[in-house]
Amino acid sequence: MEKIISETLGRIQPPDEEWRRRAWERIDNLVKPVRSLGRLEEIAAHVVAVQRTTAPALDEKVVALMAGDHGVVEEGVSLYPQEVTAKMVENFTGGGAAICALARHAGARVTVIDMGVAAELAPAEGLLIRKVGKGTANFTKGPAMSRGDAAKAVLAGIETARELKAGGARTLITGDMGIGNTTPSAAVCAAITGIDPSELAGRGTGLDDEGVRKKAAVIKEGLRVNRPDPDDALDVLSKVGGFEIAGICGLIIGGCAEGMIVVVDGFISTAGLAAAWKMCPETSRIAFAAHRSAENGHGKVLDFLGMSPILDLGMRLGEGTGGAVALHVIEASLRMFREMASFGEAGVERR
Amino acid sequence: MEKIISETLGRIQPPDEEWRRRAWERIDNLVKPVRSLGRLEEIAAHVVAVQRTTAPALDEKVVALMAGDHGVVEEGVSLYPQEVTAKMVENFTGGGAAICALARHAGARVTVIDMGVAAELAPAEGLLIRKVGKGTANFTKGPAMSRGDAAKAVLAGIETARELKAGGARTLITGDMGIGNTTPSAAVCAAITGIDPSELAGRGTGLDDEGVRKKAAVIKEGLRVNRPDPDDALDVLSKVGGFEIAGICGLIIGGCAEGMIVVVDGFISTAGLAAAWKMCPETSRIAFAAHRSAENGHGKVLDFLGMSPILDLGMRLGEGTGGAVALHVIEASLRMFREMASFGEAGVERR
Repeated sequence: MEKIISETLGRIQPPDEEWRRRAWERIDNLVKPVRSLGRLEEIAAHVVAVQRTTAPALDEKVVALMAGDHGVVEEGVSLYPQEVTAKMVENFTGGGAAICALARHAGARVTVIDMGVAAELAPAEGLLIRKVGKGTANFTKGPAMSRGDAAKAVLAGIETARELKAGGARTLITGDMGIGNTTPSAAVCAAITGIDPSELAGRGTGLDDEGVRKKAAVIKEGLRVNRPDPDDALDVLSKVGGFEIAGICGLIIGGCAEGMIVVVDGFISTAGLAAAWKMCPETSRIAFAAHRSAENGHGKVLDFLGMSPILDLGMRLGEGTGGAVALHVIEASLRMFREMASFGEAGVERR
Repeated sequence: MEKIISETLGRIQPPDEEWRRRAWERIDNLVKPVRSLGRLEEIAAHVVAVQRTTAPALDEKVVALMAGDHGVVEEGVSLYPQEVTAKMVENFTGGGAAICALARHAGARVTVIDMGVAAELAPAEGLLIRKVGKGTANFTKGPAMSRGDAAKAVLAGIETARELKAGGARTLITGDMGIGNTTPSAAVCAAITGIDPSELAGRGTGLDDEGVRKKAAVIKEGLRVNRPDPDDALDVLSKVGGFEIAGICGLIIGGCAEGMIVVVDGFISTAGLAAAWKMCPETSRIAFAAHRSAENGHGKVLDFLGMSPILDLGMRLGEGTGGAVALHVIEASLRMFREMASFGEAGVERR
């Protein structure tokens, strides 16, 4: 499995700088003061550099929402019980969750992937079963999963991206569901970036100050017990990660290898990205960071990865919700790129 | 005319706090951690408080793009010649301008209002002629316009909002076009807020540092020569404003009086809002600030008005472009509000 992962990593091409230059040539010739659309222009140029075309487009767009459970919830790190993960998967396929409403608005499809939900899930349209395990083990008492399972989860993410691409998707939005998953996400980010867990532990679904302190202590304990190797992303994912986090890491790697536009949602997705970045730093130069989450520490990890989020709306829900909202901004940038008249066409002399 | 303006101001109702409370009751009962959608939740609650309905919706959405010319361009405050204003109006009705592409993407209509373009404009679909004058006078040599003309321009804005409402519009996005109009906008903002012109003069369409210093000096000279009364918005608009800026002030007042959702674009629109705020402070509590422009000083004026912009994308084009992009975020918030399942419906116990 690790061999397939590294072959996939080897196929990742950096954004094409010659295409980016051509994009800027067009953008700077559209009828508006030069660079006056700010970030919209940078986004359009980046999509062109990734897609290598003068007709950049996002459709079809798919939110790949990876779900998994976490043994560490035993430590009391979440307000909600583990059963809610499975219940929310029903809500995703049923259409009533936040991501369902926001994805419909963005014209994106939602595919839910059971990477490691503790319960057996009933088959449903829009649900793929790729279960690597029934929830991870409590990482304060040993590794969350074996190295083999971490590789299996990453590979499932890679394969999901490949299948979605084969089915017509050009844009991949990462999403997550997993009660307790801000804790392993903070642990993965702490291990990879070296940032102190107390700076990365946040409120999650609504912890109070005492809860956040306890969570930071749980993360520190997990790192102390497992000693993940910060230079070995699979080691980090297996020791203090989660099935859906490893899956998202694979999604990002697979999406980048397939030349897709990859939109990384919030904190949990960024933990997946941090692992992907460790395997191949180009991933953080290819993917978009959708938004800066209100979850404590997300901004710090984005800074570490050198990424500038598109939105900053105080969101901290996950599910891919920030990614779905950011899609509108990316699409707006492409409408600008494809539909605006040039100075020449508009009869205005460029200054 | 001033009587009609004050009657309109008297009809402005603050957002309904009882409706806002009901909105929060619903939002806090949707199946997600409480307040985890951050700004999206606040936006939805605000739309409910303004529209006073449990089925908030933006459609129809109209970008009211007000155009005018400025005598102060004689002082060399813009890179582009005055003729470009008329040329850009042709591009707006022709569909090739940035706002056209972004409004199409947002599902909004664009209506251009000639408030005071220096040239005679050919009739075109989507263009209303409400010309108050053929460009303002150079405000470094006396008032930009008479008090009567300022009132006429504000009234034209109020009537435009009323007619758009009567035609089915529920959401009004302000937009502007006018070569040189960052200079009178900075002057209006300086007069009303007391912020020093050197903090409000920005690059506009692309001035260099020397150009920005000169622009600040021109604004200071205009304020010195005209001594606008900071407590009399019509006095400020007439002495250092512009026809489209006064028109936008009227649009905002009219939109608020009609119970419309008002989305204020960037720096020029915010100058119109500052004048509207001086006439009726509720306007800044009703309207949305679409984005923080890259134009120097925009953020400072928003802070002064107590407004928190939805987006921060480094845009500085005007035309309503920031407003058009922000519409997607507002719509996303309403999709969340209208379409999400409650905890009860989702079978999840609320914590």
